[in-house]
Amino acid sequence: MIIRGARAEDAAGIAAIIMPTIREGATYALDVDMSEADALAYWMAATKETFVAEEDGVVVGTYYIHPNGRGGARHVANCGYMTSASATGKGIARRMCEHSLAHARSRGYRAMQFNFVVSTNDRAVRLWQSLGFEILARLPLAFRHPTAGYVDALLMYQAFT
Amino acid sequence: MIIRGARAEDAAGIAAIIMPTIREGATYALDVDMSEADALAYWMAATKETFVAEEDGVVVGTYYIHPNGRGGARHVANCGYMTSASATGKGIARRMCEHSLAHARSRGYRAMQFNFVVSTNDRAVRLWQSLGFEILARLPLAFRHPTAGYVDALLMYQAFT
Repeated sequence: MIIRGARAEDAAGIAAIIMPTIREGATYALDVDMSEADALAYWMAATKETFVAEEDGVVVGTYYIHPNGRGGARHVANCGYMTSASATGKGIARRMCEHSLAHARSRGYRAMQFNFVVSTNDRAVRLWQSLGFEILARLPLAFRHPTAGYVDALLMYQAFT
Repeated sequence: MIIRGARAEDAAGIAAIIMPTIREGATYALDVDMSEADALAYWMAATKETFVAEEDGVVVGTYYIHPNGRGGARHVANCGYMTSASATGKGIARRMCEHSLAHARSRGYRAMQFNFVVSTNDRAVRLWQSLGFEILARLPLAFRHPTAGYVDALLMYQAFT
C-alpha cells in the first residue's frame, strides 16, 4: 500500500469511499443527502491537502489535512480519514493517520485536533488514542446518530513535541 | 437598544465593527488581512442568521448564529459576537448572547457551543460563564495571539434543559 497526494483523476475512487460513509451518517457531521459533487468539493477542497491510500491501483482509503482554523489558529492541523468498507481491519486508517502526523510535522503544524469524533465510533477512538491523541472534551449528546439517537462527541488533541 | 435581523444595507455598519476586530487578530481565528468583502461574506453567510444591535440608528454590535456542524450535529448552535469598540462595557455582548440563546431555543437547537474562545479574552470567558456556559476543554497553545504569543483556547458549551 502506498499513500500519495490525490489527483483530480482519483475523484471516482475517493467518491466510492466517502459517499457510503456520508450516506450512513454515523461518523461524520455532514448532510447524509449531500450530492457527490458537494462531497468531493468538501473532501478535495483547494484549502485542503488530500491523500489517497492505494493498493494494487485501487484507492482503499483517503484523508485530508488542513488548518483547523485561520489566522492565529492555523498552526493546528485537522484531518478527516475514511477507509473503504471492503478494506477495514487492515490497518489502513492507522497508516493514514501516521502519515498525516508526519506530514503535519513536516508542514510546521504544532498540534493536531479532531473536533468531532462520534463517541460510538469506538474503533476510531481507540485508534486515535493509540496514536497519541487525548480526549480533551466530551460534548454531551452533540451528535444525533442514525440508529443510536443522541450520543456524545469527543474532541481529541495531540500537541507535537 | 434593539436587536434585529441584519439586512443587506447593514453591511457598512457591520463592517465598521468586525473589521477592526479581525485586523487586530486577538480574539477570532480569522486571517487578519482578509478583505472586507470576504469578512462580510463570512459574517453574513447565507447559512447563518445574522443580527445587529442598534442604538439610535447606529449598529453597535452584531452576531451570527448557525448550526455548528451538519448532518447529525446540526442541533448544536454556534455563534460569533462582536461589539463596537466605542460601545464596550455597556452590556451589549450580554444582551446579544441572551438574545442568541433565546433564539436558539426557539429554533429548536438543543445546545450552544463556542469552539474557540481565546483564553486571554477574560472578559468574554467570564461573560459566557455567567450566562451558563461551561469550559469543556482547554486547547493547549492553540491560538497564536499577536502580542501574547501562543495561548490556550477554550471550548465552551451549554446544553439547553
